[in-house]
Amino acid sequence: MISKEDIKNRMIQAVETVKRTNPMAGSITNSVTINFVANAQLAVGGSAAMVYLPDEGEFLAEAGGATYINVGTLLPIYEQTLPCTVKALYDAGKPWVLDPVAIGIGLLRTQLLRQFKEYKPNVIRGNASEIIALAGLWGLEGGTAQSNVRGVDSTDSVTDAEIAAVALAKWTGGAVAVSGKTDLITDGSIAAFSYGGSYFMEKITGSGCSLGGVVAVYATSASPFIAALTATAAYNLAASRAESKADGPGSFQIAFIDELYKATAADIANNPFEIKEV
Amino acid sequence: MISKEDIKNRMIQAVETVKRTNPMAGSITNSVTINFVANAQLAVGGSAAMVYLPDEGEFLAEAGGATYINVGTLLPIYEQTLPCTVKALYDAGKPWVLDPVAIGIGLLRTQLLRQFKEYKPNVIRGNASEIIALAGLWGLEGGTAQSNVRGVDSTDSVTDAEIAAVALAKWTGGAVAVSGKTDLITDGSIAAFSYGGSYFMEKITGSGCSLGGVVAVYATSASPFIAALTATAAYNLAASRAESKADGPGSFQIAFIDELYKATAADIANNPFEIKEV
Amino acid sequence: MISKEDIKNRMIQAVETVKRTNPMAGSITNSVTINFVANAQLAVGGSAAMVYLPDEGEFLAEAGGATYINVGTLLPIYEQTLPCTVKALYDAGKPWVLDPVAIGIGLLRTQLLRQFKEYKPNVIRGNASEIIALAGLWGLEGGTAQSNVRGVDSTDSVTDAEIAAVALAKWTGGAVAVSGKTDLITDGSIAAFSYGGSYFMEKITGSGCSLGGVVAVYATSASPFIAALTATAAYNLAASRAESKADGPGSFQIAFIDELYKATAADIANNPFEIKEV
Repeated sequence: MISKEDIKNRMIQAVETVKRTNPMAGSITNSVTINFVANAQLAVGGSAAMVYLPDEGEFLAEAGGATYINVGTLLPIYEQTLPCTVKALYDAGKPWVLDPVAIGIGLLRTQLLRQFKEYKPNVIRGNASEIIALAGLWGLEGGTAQSNVRGVDSTDSVTDAEIAAVALAKWTGGAVAVSGKTDLITDGSIAAFSYGGSYFMEKITGSGCSLGGVVAVYATSASPFIAALTATAAYNLAASRAESKADGPGSFQIAFIDELYKATAADIANNPFEIKEV
Repeated sequence: MISKEDIKNRMIQAVETVKRTNPMAGSITNSVTINFVANAQLAVGGSAAMVYLPDEGEFLAEAGGATYINVGTLLPIYEQTLPCTVKALYDAGKPWVLDPVAIGIGLLRTQLLRQFKEYKPNVIRGNASEIIALAGLWGLEGGTAQSNVRGVDSTDSVTDAEIAAVALAKWTGGAVAVSGKTDLITDGSIAAFSYGGSYFMEKITGSGCSLGGVVAVYATSASPFIAALTATAAYNLAASRAESKADGPGSFQIAFIDELYKATAADIANNPFEIKEV
Repeated sequence: MISKEDIKNRMIQAVETVKRTNPMAGSITNSVTINFVANAQLAVGGSAAMVYLPDEGEFLAEAGGATYINVGTLLPIYEQTLPCTVKALYDAGKPWVLDPVAIGIGLLRTQLLRQFKEYKPNVIRGNASEIIALAGLWGLEGGTAQSNVRGVDSTDSVTDAEIAAVALAKWTGGAVAVSGKTDLITDGSIAAFSYGGSYFMEKITGSGCSLGGVVAVYATSASPFIAALTATAAYNLAASRAESKADGPGSFQIAFIDELYKATAADIANNPFEIKEV
């Protein structure tokens, strides 16, 4: 098994490469939190670009170092845009991050998420209920036939989703990040548990979406597992620092972006985490 | 007439139920202020979920405790989404809040708002010009044939809209909230005037929209009148507290979300208001 | 050549007229930064209204004092909405501001931006690469056949775009603003260089878009050149003041809106700039 020291060195490298090269990660993402996604991507040193149309999705797939796909607020055109974008990503061997927000709501969402199975997202990020439901939709171990997602919220705990997360990571050959009180990141052979964060993260919309966008930024410069762990560690660190300065969820979100921007590579790598074989 | 003490007790109950049960209120709302709507709903203790597609609107209508419909930025698909969502709400007896933003602009907006008459929104929230124009569109007392809305702004005062508000509330059997310097909330038999707020509320976009979203959160746990009055009181209190900390509209909006989050049930119920029979 | 003193007096007049009359400037703009655009327009004293549908675009073209068109995140309906809106603006002689965001990405974007040539936007605002690419698309001097835009970022410097900016301004008979470290504003006969700003402006999404929206607000009350210079000066001033208060890009954006709101007409006119004949 890879050592913690090795992992930390790779995290440091990912953070520094991003800060130095300002890599572009395009997104097709929901309109509720699209601004927060972009600002979080910029805060860690990336460049953001968002589109809706099929040929624009294909363009960004080619032009970006990685792409973030979030199905939160589907528009009719997504029936065309999303399949051709993820196909372009897959064919070009470009990393992409899937956020299966609100899986279970509506026919198009189910149809699209089912299609994505063959295009193997390099990182899947979601809450526990979303991860379990996606494994179920894809017929993998640890999944359930019915989604327990309530709107955009989880009703399961992170540990409930471990088997599903491992199965998804094995299927894609990438990594899966399950967000919750303690976050789980796995590549199908090892699992990391990342600590920190803040109770305010559930009191602002888009903490999960913007994390997915930041995973895509790091995925331009690191393996799926390192990208997912680095982004999660950066989030846990920034959230915990921001909480100590916040007077409520409004000032928390502002301080969070500030802390995300200020966090150094060493800060992020030293944010507490544990690893185990799975 | 119900006493002020009774009203205050019901407001306290609404606030505490929401904080305890974290009820979900779905929204179909405009893209300008969608993030603020969600964050305000979360700040008072609710859960937010936004969609665009017809079957997703129906899904949220069923799954949520109440739904917020804001016609600010219509998309072509709304021609299908909004009628079937409000029908699902009406058929299921689920409360819904209508925000007739910018009534008078465009054919689809007029067509949709006209259709909504038969589905009787449980709460209608708008500025004075919007309330007067909606009463006019529905052929009710106090309405005018022409909308005086300027873009998204009112050119009428709250008292100008009282007859229209009462007529709308009598028609729906629900409540109407007219936002302005002093806010008017009526169920068609009594009217409450809620005091407080801040001049900064007009200097940030979405103070009205996000209020509508918070009304929907309280409507999961209270009558239309109590939900509208409670949300309005919470807004007036939080805005007045935030103004004293703000250096401009940017810091005001952040402090406003903080204060909305921190306001206790007693704080909200004790925010000054008066009642009269209408 | 007009004197600096004359220019400053006209800038003072523009700022004061807007603060006094609260003019409405409608927008069709991207969903990433739509909220920031509206809040910036409100901060300087304007009123904002955003739409997507063709007849609503035409309505706002008529009703507003000026209109802001930003092609950042195109939707399918824009194929109809944008041509008929800019035609309505042109036919009515109403000023409009074009932001050719991400020019070069996708067929519809290219098709629309090509069509806009004949409707002569009164102000064109963009980064250097966007201005060069638009001049190229319109077959004007200083343009290149290929866009150097990277996602939404420039890869050229402001001085690289001077010839293209002058050519565009001569074609439209209006003004062009090129955003960068030192901003260039030209009406085709004189060029102004506006100083100030902050390195944080590139660390938040929408600093360019919201500047375009504010140009539209000033264009309701001033010539294209004065509107573009006034908005740019207000931005440079507010950004430089905000930087001194900021702990990172989150707090910077909040302080920026506050400073934009607080800037007086004299503050804005006195923000350093130089002029030369071109």
